[in-house]
Amino acid sequence: MVDTAPRTSKQSPAPTRAPAPPSPTASEAAAKTASEPAESTASSPRLDVAALGRQLLGTWPEVRLAARERAARPELQRIEGLTMAEHRERVLGQLKILVEEGAIQRAYPTSLGGLDDHGGNIAAFEELVIADPSLQIKSGVQWGLFGAAVLHLGTAPHHEKWLPAIMSLEVPGAFAMTEIGHGSDVASIATTATYDEATEEFVIHTPFRAAWKEFLGNAGLHGKHATVFAQLVTKGVNHGVHCFYVPIRDDEGEFLPGVGGEDDGLKGGLNGIDNGRLHFTNVRVPRENLLNRYGDVAADGTYSSPIESPGRRFFTMLGTLVQGRVSLDGAATTASAMGLAIAITYGNQRRQFTASSDTDEEVLLDYQRHQRRLLPRLATTYAQVFAHDEFLVKFDAVFSGKADTDDDRQDLETIAAALKPLSTWHALDTLQEAREACGGAGFIAENRLVGLRHDLDIYVTFEGDNNVLLQLVAKRLLTDFSKQFKDADAGAMARYVVAQTAERAYHGTGLRRLAQTIADFGSTARSVSELRDEKSQRELLTDRVETMIAEIAGRLRDARKLPKADAAAAFNRNQNQLIEAARAHGELLQWEAFTRGLARVEDEGTKQVLTWVRDLFGLGLIEKHAAWYLINGRLSPQRAQSVTAYIDRLIERLRPHAQGLVDAFGFGPEHLRATIASGIEQERQDEARAYFEEQRRAGTLPVPEKAKSKKR
Amino acid sequence: MVDTAPRTSKQSPAPTRAPAPPSPTASEAAAKTASEPAESTASSPRLDVAALGRQLLGTWPEVRLAARERAARPELQRIEGLTMAEHRERVLGQLKILVEEGAIQRAYPTSLGGLDDHGGNIAAFEELVIADPSLQIKSGVQWGLFGAAVLHLGTAPHHEKWLPAIMSLEVPGAFAMTEIGHGSDVASIATTATYDEATEEFVIHTPFRAAWKEFLGNAGLHGKHATVFAQLVTKGVNHGVHCFYVPIRDDEGEFLPGVGGEDDGLKGGLNGIDNGRLHFTNVRVPRENLLNRYGDVAADGTYSSPIESPGRRFFTMLGTLVQGRVSLDGAATTASAMGLAIAITYGNQRRQFTASSDTDEEVLLDYQRHQRRLLPRLATTYAQVFAHDEFLVKFDAVFSGKADTDDDRQDLETIAAALKPLSTWHALDTLQEAREACGGAGFIAENRLVGLRHDLDIYVTFEGDNNVLLQLVAKRLLTDFSKQFKDADAGAMARYVVAQTAERAYHGTGLRRLAQTIADFGSTARSVSELRDEKSQRELLTDRVETMIAEIAGRLRDARKLPKADAAAAFNRNQNQLIEAARAHGELLQWEAFTRGLARVEDEGTKQVLTWVRDLFGLGLIEKHAAWYLINGRLSPQRAQSVTAYIDRLIERLRPHAQGLVDAFGFGPEHLRATIASGIEQERQDEARAYFEEQRRAGTLPVPEKAKSKKR
Repeated sequence: MVDTAPRTSKQSPAPTRAPAPPSPTASEAAAKTASEPAESTASSPRLDVAALGRQLLGTWPEVRLAARERAARPELQRIEGLTMAEHRERVLGQLKILVEEGAIQRAYPTSLGGLDDHGGNIAAFEELVIADPSLQIKSGVQWGLFGAAVLHLGTAPHHEKWLPAIMSLEVPGAFAMTEIGHGSDVASIATTATYDEATEEFVIHTPFRAAWKEFLGNAGLHGKHATVFAQLVTKGVNHGVHCFYVPIRDDEGEFLPGVGGEDDGLKGGLNGIDNGRLHFTNVRVPRENLLNRYGDVAADGTYSSPIESPGRRFFTMLGTLVQGRVSLDGAATTASAMGLAIAITYGNQRRQFTASSDTDEEVLLDYQRHQRRLLPRLATTYAQVFAHDEFLVKFDAVFSGKADTDDDRQDLETIAAALKPLSTWHALDTLQEAREACGGAGFIAENRLVGLRHDLDIYVTFEGDNNVLLQLVAKRLLTDFSKQFKDADAGAMARYVVAQTAERAYHGTGLRRLAQTIADFGSTARSVSELRDEKSQRELLTDRVETMIAEIAGRLRDARKLPKADAAAAFNRNQNQLIEAARAHGELLQWEAFTRGLARVEDEGTKQVLTWVRDLFGLGLIEKHAAWYLINGRLSPQRAQSVTAYIDRLIERLRPHAQGLVDAFGFGPEHLRATIASGIEQERQDEARAYFEEQRRAGTLPVPEKAKSKKR
Repeated sequence: MVDTAPRTSKQSPAPTRAPAPPSPTASEAAAKTASEPAESTASSPRLDVAALGRQLLGTWPEVRLAARERAARPELQRIEGLTMAEHRERVLGQLKILVEEGAIQRAYPTSLGGLDDHGGNIAAFEELVIADPSLQIKSGVQWGLFGAAVLHLGTAPHHEKWLPAIMSLEVPGAFAMTEIGHGSDVASIATTATYDEATEEFVIHTPFRAAWKEFLGNAGLHGKHATVFAQLVTKGVNHGVHCFYVPIRDDEGEFLPGVGGEDDGLKGGLNGIDNGRLHFTNVRVPRENLLNRYGDVAADGTYSSPIESPGRRFFTMLGTLVQGRVSLDGAATTASAMGLAIAITYGNQRRQFTASSDTDEEVLLDYQRHQRRLLPRLATTYAQVFAHDEFLVKFDAVFSGKADTDDDRQDLETIAAALKPLSTWHALDTLQEAREACGGAGFIAENRLVGLRHDLDIYVTFEGDNNVLLQLVAKRLLTDFSKQFKDADAGAMARYVVAQTAERAYHGTGLRRLAQTIADFGSTARSVSELRDEKSQRELLTDRVETMIAEIAGRLRDARKLPKADAAAAFNRNQNQLIEAARAHGELLQWEAFTRGLARVEDEGTKQVLTWVRDLFGLGLIEKHAAWYLINGRLSPQRAQSVTAYIDRLIERLRPHAQGLVDAFGFGPEHLRATIASGIEQERQDEARAYFEEQRRAGTLPVPEKAKSKKR
């Protein structure tokens, strides 16, 4: 087993490669500065940062550590201030390094030099975000989308013919699915691939401007081939979206005949990737270029598929691409952890304003507001780390074939659609709060927070728009609730919602009864002890999801009798709440995963601290949704108030452990690379303090006018 | 009176300079696509976009329109993708254009070619954000900070000697207040200006690294002089922070002896400005270089000031710089309006997924979730437009001397500290939501949303960190509440909070009684009619501010008996809620301003629509804080639920007017300059639709497999 001890981010550049021993000094130093209530000072538990760090590495710790060592190498890292052209070339070069070092082959078949290791592959891939999100996403385009389309949608002859050059980067490629006119609604893309029996070719064609392929990584500049999604038409029948392997550029980088495109130019981030547009004018490819795992066309134009239902076939094909969402969940969580490591380290050293003494300024993290801004986000990040690892294990089971039933795949997709939106939004929110918590320094590029935020911005709308994904989750929840939905479109959904009473099916858990009694509690102490009870938190969080879904299902029940347009309108009037219900479901998944992770902690002090973190996460959710709990009689006003009071207490208790909790993420200075988190602020504070002490000692400090006039 | 008719942003580039007539087609087109309830279709009021546009221009309409015409000129606009060096040079050149055209002199004395027009100056200055936020902020550094320090902190000889070269940009300058070690706490800066009687000079000195001046625009490259804030020391006494005029670079751009610095390099935005650091090693300036309006040193070293209290003197000096906050409030509101104009125009053309029919895809803005994402933010932006104009009028009154008592100045600063945080945070939130609402297209630089967001990021922490400003507001509210605070520091604050019962002083408004009766209402109709009543909204919003402040004051009452450290700890335990109370106060100010603006609307249809917008804003606040209203018995659960239901109804009613409401902001394509808001999406939709119609007509559209298999 490798040494997984996390490095403290508080010291100046540590020797790379040789992980330093866990540094209790960092958290101890932080603890010293904490203004904690007497209660917790006396008995504050000790956090085992090293052991916690090992646990946070999850199921593929060695793969992750190796990937982090790689991400710590300057030649793989982002340089701020490159032009777009320079950045693109640099990242392309970095991809070549990854190939040379055998870092990208993991998910590919052993027969082609891979390891058939899907979970490990994603674990390693996610860590690239530490080096440069452009590197992560350009790798993802090449091997996780373009290569993965050949791998998962193609068959053995395709693998043998094309994968070696894709794996070696000899052929950089674009994944041409999205069109200008259709992003979220992939089924409606308008590019056609019409089979020509005479020549045994498919004719790839873009019928109008809205059908141009758009936002494709590698399409702007480097891509030579593309996996193009198009409506497969043969014998006058449209068999729906299929994927075709299409050469797009010659060796000089010029578009091949019939192919055209544009560069997307500068973006809000990820400028190391050459996104662009593509269009096709009757471009012919051999029949064999259809990636035919889920649908094939014989020489005579006869279509066949192992999946009879066109709808199911479509979702099966798209389902093979779920890994993008898995990896974004992990990368977003890693980026959030980095932002918090930077802001909390700085907040533990930075001082501003005197409050409790006349001379010593307060450490930022001792301000309640500062704690409120950072610690709940830290708790959410912890929840995401645990949820992501479970998610990755599930993904690995499906893709390795260990547990790969239809149900497994559907569950995996629902988890992906629930977790990816939450974690990517959380990353933007957290990086922004971290930026603001570091003030002007947070805005300077060398402190990394703005760059990470710019790059991660697009994570919330690519690989599935977050709102659209959450709506998918909600539909699944409604389906589970009714077990009678047959069709995914909104009108059908609304029409087929069954007449099921919410109360009977969903309130066997005793939650309503619990809520009734809550109002009767008179004592805050009893109230708080209930709240920190794991079972109560679970029930409150579960109840909310179930009740919201049941209520919406109830409201949609009668819609099935309506004409399509009216049914769709009824569904639409519930859309906002549906998406909120899906979010609540995702939050519950995270809480459950955190709670299971907590159960595996052995060290007593660590378990105590982590329990507070979990409680902060769980009660934070309840506080955020307090209005719902109050309106629905699940919390009495008194108890809702005690939720906030208890959160304040948890934050006070966790304050001394803030540094340890971010140190446990295991980032070294070679990963964070933020000047303000290097210890420089502490050095400046120490220098300033020494200066004033010396002046006071020597009697050379000028007297303040106020003191002077008083003396008079 | 000039023609102030707003231009629709839906058309392709309109002829500049000749404002197009108000375009009802835009909102009518939007109305056609709306899925509105039968109720409002029949009787939907007509919005007079032109008249509303004129009202939104506020108190300085002609100045604003002229500034917008200027901002529409390409040579003053940002070019995406410039290197930092190119962008800096471009913006410097743009400043020269502003000088040549007499666009920056407005705030300066008539004796120097100015207009002594403070409100108009800010109105014009804010509009520069449309051209490039870097241009706005670099102008602000030169003429609103550096020049304004000379103007407001200096006296006639300084004005005559230095202002002409500052106004002409012959001397670009830095405003050297913030230090690495002290940003929010300006009083604690450590740079010293020690008077040397022998030579009648001040010695400017940086004692340690933390005292380096930091984040100064113009310091990185272009600045020749600087207004340096330092602790004024004479005869062994420190008289606190004063401002000195200090040359820093020679004509070749090299630092003068004793001056040093660093370039801040790349930032998260505003890269057209050369921010940098400065430090001073015993730099000598003549005694006359002290900007001596509020404090002077005689040749013999005797200090004198028209303001006896060092504290009041300090706050008076800083108070002269409030205009930065005024202009950020305006610019942030303008940027939010631009983001919404882009996203709503696009959302009115873009279609995705079929729901209510088998062929026609839904317009994005017809989705409830999409409406929920954009329309409440539009309502808030409207509130800000009205609040900002009142704020600017107040500012103008103080700075023109029309109403310039101590109370006026304090009120102005409190308003600034309340509004600037809300509007700058709102800008980031709105630009982000607009970006996401436009999907991948929102991430492309040419669509402007990401660039605006990057640039405005720093607005939330500069010219006063938002959290620190809100804490100032809260302290003012506590002071008003107690009338007994004498000192601004936290310990003192807590110690001196008076024993005042909340109930007696703050609940004479009958709100509690109102709340009691609310619970008794059984009817939703009655409940809703109460909610849309202006008086109810005002009472609910006012009550929350007052109750929160009274409660905190109550909790701090006993703290005055405690030792300083314990009192500070007590204050700190309420810090988060204090800041929330200040936010509530700011929201109330916005609501009140909106309501006053609404009262001035004459056109009946416009008044109706704008009333819905105001109600959406007011009830949106109540919904956001519903937990508080429920916990404190101000809303019954039933009524809290009807708030949400009524908001849903308001949004449905406003949906057909969304385009008109953003058109009324008056941005033309030359201002928005976002490809996706140019009408290109509508063209693409029309082209695609025509293609499919033609195919269907000709019978050449391939049959879907599903339909085919059914036929069999």
